[in-house]
Order: sequence, then structure tokens, then C-alpha cells
Amino acid sequence: MTKLNWGMIGGGEGSQIGPAHRLGAQADGHFTFAAGALDIDADKGRAYAQSLGVAADRAYGNWQEMLDGEKGREDRIDLVTVATPNSTHYEITKAFLEAGFNVLCEKPMTMTVEEGEDIVRTAEATGRICAVNYCYSAYPMVRHMRHMVASGELGAIRCVVANFSHGHHADAGDADNPRVRWRYDPAMAGVSGQMADCGIHALNLATFITGDEVTTLSADFASTIPSRVLEDDAMVNFRLSKGTIGRLWTSTIAIGRMHGLDIQVFGEKGGVRWHSEQPGQVWYTRLNGRTEIIEKGEGGISEMAAHVSRVPIAHPEGFPLAVANIYVDLAAAIRARRDGTPLDPAADHFPKAEAGLRSMASVYATVASAKADGAWVDARPPMYR
Amino acid sequence: MTKLNWGMIGGGEGSQIGPAHRLGAQADGHFTFAAGALDIDADKGRAYAQSLGVAADRAYGNWQEMLDGEKGREDRIDLVTVATPNSTHYEITKAFLEAGFNVLCEKPMTMTVEEGEDIVRTAEATGRICAVNYCYSAYPMVRHMRHMVASGELGAIRCVVANFSHGHHADAGDADNPRVRWRYDPAMAGVSGQMADCGIHALNLATFITGDEVTTLSADFASTIPSRVLEDDAMVNFRLSKGTIGRLWTSTIAIGRMHGLDIQVFGEKGGVRWHSEQPGQVWYTRLNGRTEIIEKGEGGISEMAAHVSRVPIAHPEGFPLAVANIYVDLAAAIRARRDGTPLDPAADHFPKAEAGLRSMASVYATVASAKADGAWVDARPPMYR
Amino acid sequence: MTKLNWGMIGGGEGSQIGPAHRLGAQADGHFTFAAGALDIDADKGRAYAQSLGVAADRAYGNWQEMLDGEKGREDRIDLVTVATPNSTHYEITKAFLEAGFNVLCEKPMTMTVEEGEDIVRTAEATGRICAVNYCYSAYPMVRHMRHMVASGELGAIRCVVANFSHGHHADAGDADNPRVRWRYDPAMAGVSGQMADCGIHALNLATFITGDEVTTLSADFASTIPSRVLEDDAMVNFRLSKGTIGRLWTSTIAIGRMHGLDIQVFGEKGGVRWHSEQPGQVWYTRLNGRTEIIEKGEGGISEMAAHVSRVPIAHPEGFPLAVANIYVDLAAAIRARRDGTPLDPAADHFPKAEAGLRSMASVYATVASAKADGAWVDARPPMYR
Amino acid sequence: MTKLNWGMIGGGEGSQIGPAHRLGAQADGHFTFAAGALDIDADKGRAYAQSLGVAADRAYGNWQEMLDGEKGREDRIDLVTVATPNSTHYEITKAFLEAGFNVLCEKPMTMTVEEGEDIVRTAEATGRICAVNYCYSAYPMVRHMRHMVASGELGAIRCVVANFSHGHHADAGDADNPRVRWRYDPAMAGVSGQMADCGIHALNLATFITGDEVTTLSADFASTIPSRVLEDDAMVNFRLSKGTIGRLWTSTIAIGRMHGLDIQVFGEKGGVRWHSEQPGQVWYTRLNGRTEIIEKGEGGISEMAAHVSRVPIAHPEGFPLAVANIYVDLAAAIRARRDGTPLDPAADHFPKAEAGLRSMASVYATVASAKADGAWVDARPPMYR
Repeated sequence: MTKLNWGMIGGGEGSQIGPAHRLGAQADGHFTFAAGALDIDADKGRAYAQSLGVAADRAYGNWQEMLDGEKGREDRIDLVTVATPNSTHYEITKAFLEAGFNVLCEKPMTMTVEEGEDIVRTAEATGRICAVNYCYSAYPMVRHMRHMVASGELGAIRCVVANFSHGHHADAGDADNPRVRWRYDPAMAGVSGQMADCGIHALNLATFITGDEVTTLSADFASTIPSRVLEDDAMVNFRLSKGTIGRLWTSTIAIGRMHGLDIQVFGEKGGVRWHSEQPGQVWYTRLNGRTEIIEKGEGGISEMAAHVSRVPIAHPEGFPLAVANIYVDLAAAIRARRDGTPLDPAADHFPKAEAGLRSMASVYATVASAKADGAWVDARPPMYR
Repeated sequence: MTKLNWGMIGGGEGSQIGPAHRLGAQADGHFTFAAGALDIDADKGRAYAQSLGVAADRAYGNWQEMLDGEKGREDRIDLVTVATPNSTHYEITKAFLEAGFNVLCEKPMTMTVEEGEDIVRTAEATGRICAVNYCYSAYPMVRHMRHMVASGELGAIRCVVANFSHGHHADAGDADNPRVRWRYDPAMAGVSGQMADCGIHALNLATFITGDEVTTLSADFASTIPSRVLEDDAMVNFRLSKGTIGRLWTSTIAIGRMHGLDIQVFGEKGGVRWHSEQPGQVWYTRLNGRTEIIEKGEGGISEMAAHVSRVPIAHPEGFPLAVANIYVDLAAAIRARRDGTPLDPAADHFPKAEAGLRSMASVYATVASAKADGAWVDARPPMYR
Repeated sequence: MTKLNWGMIGGGEGSQIGPAHRLGAQADGHFTFAAGALDIDADKGRAYAQSLGVAADRAYGNWQEMLDGEKGREDRIDLVTVATPNSTHYEITKAFLEAGFNVLCEKPMTMTVEEGEDIVRTAEATGRICAVNYCYSAYPMVRHMRHMVASGELGAIRCVVANFSHGHHADAGDADNPRVRWRYDPAMAGVSGQMADCGIHALNLATFITGDEVTTLSADFASTIPSRVLEDDAMVNFRLSKGTIGRLWTSTIAIGRMHGLDIQVFGEKGGVRWHSEQPGQVWYTRLNGRTEIIEKGEGGISEMAAHVSRVPIAHPEGFPLAVANIYVDLAAAIRARRDGTPLDPAADHFPKAEAGLRSMASVYATVASAKADGAWVDARPPMYR
Repeated sequence: MTKLNWGMIGGGEGSQIGPAHRLGAQADGHFTFAAGALDIDADKGRAYAQSLGVAADRAYGNWQEMLDGEKGREDRIDLVTVATPNSTHYEITKAFLEAGFNVLCEKPMTMTVEEGEDIVRTAEATGRICAVNYCYSAYPMVRHMRHMVASGELGAIRCVVANFSHGHHADAGDADNPRVRWRYDPAMAGVSGQMADCGIHALNLATFITGDEVTTLSADFASTIPSRVLEDDAMVNFRLSKGTIGRLWTSTIAIGRMHGLDIQVFGEKGGVRWHSEQPGQVWYTRLNGRTEIIEKGEGGISEMAAHVSRVPIAHPEGFPLAVANIYVDLAAAIRARRDGTPLDPAADHFPKAEAGLRSMASVYATVASAKADGAWVDARPPMYR
């Protein structure tokens, strides 16, 4: 099993996302870090890439250079990760797909629904993989919940309750803090604040676990700190295509919630809940039964979960390896395509361009609903209506 | 400190609420169980009351008899608890107030907003105490959270998130179970199912802790089991008068939530959360600080909490003694009125008729909003607009 | 079901234990508080008893007066609670037993093993009930664990691990605090500090739940604060008669443990654990299975637990009602003896004089072992060897 | 910062420890996997190494070949990891140290105390790094507790309580299961079962966090399943050199404890506790204060913890990255020695040969004490007495 070649755009020195992707790509030995255009400052980017072991001729000054350089190589990269500022994702992702590369794009995949539809169509047309980094969906026990729903263990799903609320932007004194301010300024963040930043992860989990899609929704937005234009607290009621009721709360002013991403799924035959701060367990209660704790690594855990687990029961794996799980799946998918072999079904649960598109459509729908006093609106991308 | 005389209407043999009130009234030695009309069957009620130590001449066959009997006595009861079926609360409560008795009424205080306004006016006119059994508000640490808000420790309150969701009516096979069915049948339960039964407790906590009132709200109701007419899952967005954002989720199909009453309050300077299954702790996080666990009974706990605590730190007190705390307060209030002494401010936090009225107005508002696709509606009783 | 008459010795104004016993005796309506000698100051005791509703002629100045007064009455008390200073328990308990009264004695029942044997023999000779207030054993879920062992659900018990460690005496600056100092001074506390105060509760739970008795033990004592003579931290290894291994840790300097009484029981077929700060749940794991949470009040809970539960699933009951449960059992036992009816087996699990004796023998054994560098010693009272 | 060269002995296809070390070495980009002798079957080992990207001439058939091959290379490996069966650790580690290589040895470092002393002396004589994989000590929050003790935040340490108890070998039916049986058979496991396997990790944590060493101890061993010769449950009382009291419980029959490694440290000024199943938090209580939750990644966390953290607050990192943290430290230490630069003090907390030796001395001491009915014995290696 030879290693695949991997490249990254963005994620330069000092960025938080860069090390996460490098660890994710290299932790399990599937990818060699072969090429990079890591920084907006071309010289710094080239130097930094080389310091990380990238050969000088593949340490590029910008993404266009990298596209040109890699396109012609026989040992061209098998996958490129796009970890640049949000507003550039669309252009870069599209260019690499069209040149025949597989892409893993940071979220949000695009800034608009239209761009999202274009990426989905481009990926289809080129036959390349376009993945989006909804990494929470790659936790083993999130995968296991998806398995439980798919296998019918929970029965038809009646209700899903998802939260992603923290208190890290609760300080009104942060109004001039540039690391915080931009998130609530439409000029920099776009149409939505916390919903686009965090809420969307929780909503993606709701659809990932249920294997279903959001059809309509109603939203209530609030900006609880006067200096903010975009929402810092939002409640969304939604419906999935099979009739499931959904509730989503997301906030940045929930002081005391450190990383409050949790989800509860209630079916006819049982309920489950999971919290990202203790990701190795699912609390499961059968109808009229006791609550049981399902442990990552227990005997009989689903193949979907086992596929992305490394260490025995009750040894936590953590967030960086959830990112790595996306790369585990991508390596399998790339090899299967390359070799013309069937893809292990357990590896086919990484988030794809469609998820990136549906997320963006949901964000726009919440914005529209909130502006219309909570009126129910269609949350589907036009191309899927 | 001589004991006060107490009487009860309803709560006969086999009822759940009867023992709770008797324990509540007698646990701390404030009340003697002196009179009762405990059962719809007059003979059974008289016999049961006597078996519990009530004198034969004060073991009544029905509430009218009891009203007549007690009215003329010099040692007449100081407080009557109304624990009859919901639809009779209004009539009985009103009659006893008008005859000069203090009343503790089970929730809901009335079936309509109009009746609620009438009770509030009657209590005012007669100068009698009319309390409603929102017993969760009497937990020491709920009182302490109210203290924290009132004292400004949390700053202005931005957001309150309250849940009361359980899974005890999640079995579709219960459609013919009489103990469950009536709750979702308008003919028996009135305008609302789970919102009126449980949601209202959570909403009452939100207003009790913040010391504020609901002004407007928007609701999304669902009946997830086909046989049900009334809602078994509801989400309510609301606003308090000082601008606080509110979110309330209540459900009966949330399998795995055993008694999921919890509340989170987020202010400018800190956040707190409390869960009814572990009522002796409040998790408190100061802005930019660590989470701290406030323990019932810790040094320096507020007088508001200490007033209703009996045992040292980390010894749980539990639900029956929360009910007893209502009686602790009522005993103090009755004695203060009787003796013309000032009421200890720490004892003046029991839920009053106004809370019963505001709750009913909120329930009706959720029903109206849910019918209007979540339109925002005024949740205030007309007399307070 | 007429009420029984109850009296108390000790527990005067300002004591902590007095209100706990009064609440315990009266909460469920089984006992009328009929007589008392509540204070070392006769006048204060008489006045206080009357303020609590005791008739003037049964508000006694001291225990001898009370013994004389009650002995001759036709409506003599059915049960007396002894809540005086530890060194007087033996004399008072013995005197009341010999006069034909049932007794509930606070722990420790006696100061020596010899006295303990005398009480056991006196109770046997007189045919009176002598109970000891090991109230933690009366929590519903502790009873349920006893049921699980007795029914064979856990198989033969291999190991039991009990802790009762808190940090409330961790302040070296308390050396002159009279509320703390006496506990570590042999002149006042006797042979043992924390082992006699708290450790003994945990050891009692170990024997109560397993239905077995301590045979031998080895102890390691430490006085971690220089001003202390008696131990403030102790580890005890022990063996039960059926071969179970035991470990017990008890400490008063474990800062951060608020009320750290917990117990784990491991059998051939499963393990359980329980923590006094959340007493309504038992965590249960079957061999090779998942952890399940058993809830007080769940469907199918043992009769042993249901017998001492009052409110539905997930409504906590708390410590004061654990004390009340002792009185629930005693009321049933007293009535059965009085009426010559069989005692409901579910009510026969209150701690008896034998438990008080065995506890004292264990404490003396730990002291002897600790002095002998941890040598294994016989922990059985001589009369049971 | 060029990558260092890394080699591994053992950890072949199908082993659990192999992937953990490869992930640990490569996750953060410090090491290139350059050489390996991965399997007892030379051909399989060579093939597997090459499949993982090792060049053919550095995919060796056994460790002697690897020693010879690497010794002469200019680009020789900077670090070798020894992950072979326990009984071979000593010989291989010694040979590589003597040839001038840095070594990371799996635990136990040796089978006897004498061998341990030899390794310590060899490392000193050669000036090479010899580390031992006590990976739990590399969790960020374990490091932070070490910082808290070292900085005096907790005051003098009075007591440390460490547990490592699980229930994964509780099935008596496993007597013939080869994966379990060998652990309790002296012919295969040596002098100790669970104490040597798991207890030693907890004891190492106790010394790591306190910065102190075990001097004397007393042990109680039990074999609760008849087929076992070596202990499956052990309790150890110990003393550290500065007078701290220690308690250690370790078991394999504690059904329901999934990975029960936890530690509590109690000082004059505060107490902390940590549990390996939720490794990102430390619960901290100041004397007479509330419990606070210290979060990995919080503002102001110690440099000792920050040095081995990768992702923000409340994003769990997990066990595989604790192993990686050992490699992070080793990379820093190797570079500092190579470059003659001072080692970042935050990187100098990896477990060294001395820890491996002291652990082995402690295990032998527990065995001796248990055989002598718990007599207190000296736990120090002779060379440190």
C-alpha cells in the first residue's frame, strides 16, 4: 500500500487549520505531504513548505502556480486540501476539480447557493471527488449513530435536537477585537454569523445521522450584543424529508458551554445522544428500557464506527483524529477509483460537495426566515427541489 | 411556634399528589393535618382522612361541606390545598378565597386566562394568599439562581434556555392506555398537551429565575404519534420584558430523558445551568472564567437558598422537600399576616396566583402561535398589557 | 392506620440531627411527636419540646424523667430516638430497652465492643427493637443493590470497594476550631477519628449490600495535619466471610470531594456502583455487557427499593427521606409486633443492633491493625467468633 | 526544521502497539519512518516495512541486522522504538544504547530491577536518551497537574489516590483464552499480573505529578478467579519521600470500569482529580473553595500543558496523541543535543529510564509485601537507597 501524494493550499505558519490538516493527512500514513502553496506571501509559503519536508520544486508561491506545476507531473498530487480564506474556496476548488484533482475543501465550501450548485455539478462532470471538512461527522460514534438509524434500530425518526452553543464570544468588550468582530460584520462574514460558523455543523450532523435532508425551516435570530449586526444566537425549527421534527440552537454567548456541540435523535424504538466533549460514548435508551452506554471499541460495534477507530474501548481518540478520519476515507476512495476496485462501504461516509451545498442552502434559508419573523421557508437548494 | 391547621381537597387513597402534599405540609412540623375532603366518593374520603389522623368531624364528604364546616370554626384551617381534577381548580379556589381562606392550588390554577384573571382579582380583593404549586421553583439552588440574577452577579440577562422533555409517552402502543391517551385529547386535556403539562414548569422557571415576564412568543407544535391530536413535542421562542431571548423545548417522546427539566441562563457577566435530576448543584461560569460548581449548603450561599435547605453540603434534598419548601414559605407568610409582623424576605418567593395566570396566558399564546405557523403573538394576560 | 407515638432524647434547638429525626419520623405520617427530653438544659428542653407541639406533661427535663414518665402511661411512646452525645448512647439505649421500649440509636451505638455486645444481648433478652441510624443503607437504590446481590443477579461477589472521603477538615488552620478539633483528640472522640465517624458508614454499606460480614482486616492510618492525634485518612483492606475482597478508603482531607460516599460491588456476573451525591441511580454492567443506568422508580424495580420510594422515576428523594425510610421500616416493624402480624419482608432491612456492634468491632480492629503496621486482625465481635 | 529519522523494532502487521507508535512518531511531522525490523518472521517484517514506505535496504529482518545496518550509515536513525515482547526489551535497548542510538522502550523497560539499573547506568555512560513509554504522563492535563504541584499551587501534598481498574478480564470462562491466560501465569508474565500491567501506570502518574518517589509500600494481592496464579486485584498503600500518603487500587475484575485510570492529589491548599476517559479536564478545588474545572486550552494554562496541546479548548485530543506527545518531546530533546542548544524546559517531562527502573522496583516490592501479608517494604531500587 504505497502512500498517496497530498498537497495543501493555505494553512501557513501560525494558522490553526494547517497543522490540523497536516496531522490528519499524515497520522495514519496514507499521504505524503508532497506539495503546497501555504501562504499569501509567496516567499514565506515556499520556505515554510520546505521546512515541513516538501521538495523545493513543489513548494509553490500561490495556488495558480501549484495548479500549473502539479497538472503536468506524473507524480501529481492525489488530493489537494483547500484551507484558504472562505471567499476563495469556490474559485480554487472549481479550478482544481476541472484540472482533474480530487479536493477536500474547508467549510463553507462556497459563499452562495449558486456557487455551491456549480461545485456539485463540476464534481459530477469531472468525476473527481470533492469533499468538505464536516469533520464532526467522522467521529466513530457519530458514524455509529448513523448506522443505528440506517439499520432501523431506532425505528422511524420522530425528532432530532442539535445544539452548537458556546460562550467564547460573550464578552461585549470584544467589540474591537479583530478576531471576534469580523464574525458579526456582513462585509466580512457574509449573510450569517453563528449559524454559518457553528450551527451548520450541528445541522449537518442532524442530516448525516438520520440520512435525511432538511426541507423547510423557521428561524429566530438575535444579536445580543449591540455592536453586532449578524446573529450571535439562533434557534431553528426544521423538518426533514421523512417528516422528522428538528430543533437547532446555536449561540456564541452561552457562557459556560465550552464546546457545546451535542445531538439527540429520538425514534419510535429508541433514543440516542452524543456530546462532542466526550465523543467516545453514545447514550442509548430503548423504548421502555434503561439507558445504556455504547462505547467506541465495544464488542459488536458497527463496522461504520470500527473503520475509523484506532485504539481499544474507553481510550479517547479526539478531534484531530476525527479530521484524520476524513483522510482515511479519502485515501480509500482515491485508491478505489485509481485501482478500479469497489470502495469499502464503511469508507463512503465522508462529507461530499452535496453536503456543502445543502448546508449553504440551509444557512440562506435561516437568514430569509429570520428576516420574515420566522416564516417557514424552503431550505432545499433549487437543483434539488 | 404553634402549628398551623391545614386541610386538603382531593389527594385521596391511591393518588400520587396526595402523599406529596401531606409530606410537604407535615415534614417540617409547620402544619397539622386538620381537615380534608379527600375523595370524590364521600364515604371513602371521610374514612381515609380519619385513617390519616383527621378528626371525624373534620373528615368531610366534599369540598362544599368542608367550606361550610371550616368557615364557622374558631380553629378553622389556616391553609387549604386544592388537589382535585384540573377543571375544578377554579371554582374551589375561588370559593375558599372568598370565604377568607388561604389557598395552595395545584397547577394549572385555571383552565382559561379569564378564570386566571378572576382568581388574581379575587385574591387581591380578599387579601388572602393564593399560591400555585410550581414546586421546582422552590428548590434551594433555583432560588439561588434567582438571587444571582437579582443581585446583578450575572449582569443583564441575554438569553435563557429551558427544557422539560422526557420519553415516558413515546410508546405508540400506548394509544389506548387511558393514563396516556387523555393527555393528547382536547376533550379531556384542553387546548394543549405537553406544553400545558410540563413546558409550563420550564417557562415558569425561566421567569422565576430572571424575575421577568414573557411578553411575546412563537411556537412550533408537533404530534409525532398519529393517534394524538394535541402536541407531544413543542419548541417555543420567546422574549422577556427586559429584552432577554428565550428558547423552550418540551417533549414527551424524548426517549432516554428521564426527567429532563433543565435551565440555562446567560447574562453579560456569567452563565449558570441547573438540572432537576441533580438539583443540589448549579454550574456557574463567569465571563472569561472557569466553570465552578456551586453547592447547596456551601459557605456563603444566599439566604434565599439557605432558607429552604435542611442538610449540609452535598447531601441531596430531593423533590418531595421542594414541595415542602412551598409549605415552609406559606407557613411564614400566614404567620406574618396573622401576627402583623413583617414577612422574612427570603420566604416571599413562593409562586402566587399571578404566576398561575401568566402561565395560562403563555400556554394559550403557544397554541395560537402554533396554529398560525409560528407567528409571534402577545403572551401577556390582558389585564397586564 | 393510627399513628404511633414517638419520643426523642437530645436533638435540641440548634442541633443538626434533631430536625433530621423529626422530619424523618413525621414526613410519612407514621409517628406523632409525643414526648421529648431534648436538651441538657432541662428548662430549654421542655420549652422547645412544647414549641414543637409536645404536650407539657411529656416535655421532660432529662432522659431519666422521660423514662419514668413514659413507663407508666397507657399511651407510652412506641419508639424512642436517642440522639444525645456519643458517650451516652449506651446507657440510655440500655435503660429504655430494659423498660420495654423500642429504640432507634444514633451511631455509634456504643463506645466499646463490650458495650455493643451488651446492647445486642439486651435487645434479644427484652424482645425489643434496637435499631441504629445507618441511614445510607435506607436509600432505595442501596436497597436495590442488596436485592441484586441476594437474588444472585451479580453472582458470587468478588470485590467491594467503598469510599467515604471528603475535604471538609482539610484546613490546617482549623487546629483550634472546636467543631473540628475534638474529632482528632482521643480524649473526646475515642480510639478513632475518621474511621469511626465516616469510614464506618461505608463499611456498613459494604456488608449491608453484600449481606455478608467482615472477618479480618488490615489498616493504614495517617494523621496528615500535625496537630492531630487520631487519623484523618485511612485505608482498610478487608475480607468478608464468603471470601469477598474489600477495599475502603476514608479521609477528611480530600479537598474537592464534597460528600464522597460511594461504593462499587463486583461479582462474577456483573458490577454495580452508587454514589451518595446522586442516590437515585445505580450504574450496572453485566459481564461482557454495556453499562446500564438503573433508575429509582423504573418499571420492575425491586420491591425492596419500591418500598422506600415515594415519587416517580428521576425525581430525586434525598438524604432526609433516607432517614425517614428508617422510620418507615420501624413503623412497620412496631405495628407487626404489636398486632402479631407478619412483617412485610421489604420492611425488614433497617439496621439493627448487630450492625452497630459489628461496626464498633471493625473500628477497633482497624485501630489495632494500624498500630501493628497493618497486620491482619480479626474484626469480628467476640460473641460472633 | 528538517525531519528526524526514526526506526522501529517490533510492531508488525496486526499488532496494536505498532500503529500507535507510527501515528505517534509521524502525526506532528517530526520523524520520518526510515528503518524497521517489524516482525519475528524476517520476510514478513521486511515486506511490511516497505509497504509502509521504508526503503528496501532499511527494511531489516531482525534487530541485530538493523543495529548493524544503521550503525554505519551517515543518515542513521535518530531514535529507535523498541516494541517487541517484554522479555526482549532489556537486551535490545542495551545494545542500541551502547551503539549510540537514542531509544524509546515500551514498558516494562526490563523484567528485573537489576536489568533496570543496568539500563540506567548504560544510558548515563553513553549519554544517549533512553525513554520509556509511560504515555499517560504525556496528556496535557497530567502535565498541568505536575505544574500545579511544582509551582506550589496545591501546597505540600498530603495524599495521592490512584486507580487503574477495569473489568475486561472478569470472565471466569476466559481461563483458556490465550489472550487473557498468560497475564496470570508466572511462566509468561513474570512476578506480577495486574500490578505490572496496569497498576504501574497509575503509580507512575502518582510520582510524575507529585515530582516525588515511592519509598516504602504495603500490598494486598488477590486472585479472584481460581484458575489464576498472579493477582487480578491489588491494593497498595505507599509513602513518597516527602511524606505523602499514597493509595493505589488496580483490578481487572471491576466490571463496569471501562478504562478506570484516575488520580486524585490532595495538598494543603487544594485538591485535583483527573480521569483518563475524559482527559481534557482537571477538577480543581481550592481549600475552602468551590470545585472549578480547568480546561485544556483555557487562557493561562501552563506552558507544560500548552506544549503538548494542538487544538482549542474543549476539543478532545485523546490517547494516540498522548503517545505522540512523547515523540514531540523526544524530537525536541534529540535536536537540542544534536545542535548543542538548550532544551525547552517544557519538553523535558518525557519518562526516562529512571522511571522504568523505579517502576520495576515498585512492582517487585508489591510482590514481596503481598507475600509477607502486607508487611511494609522498601520500594526503592538499590542504587537509589
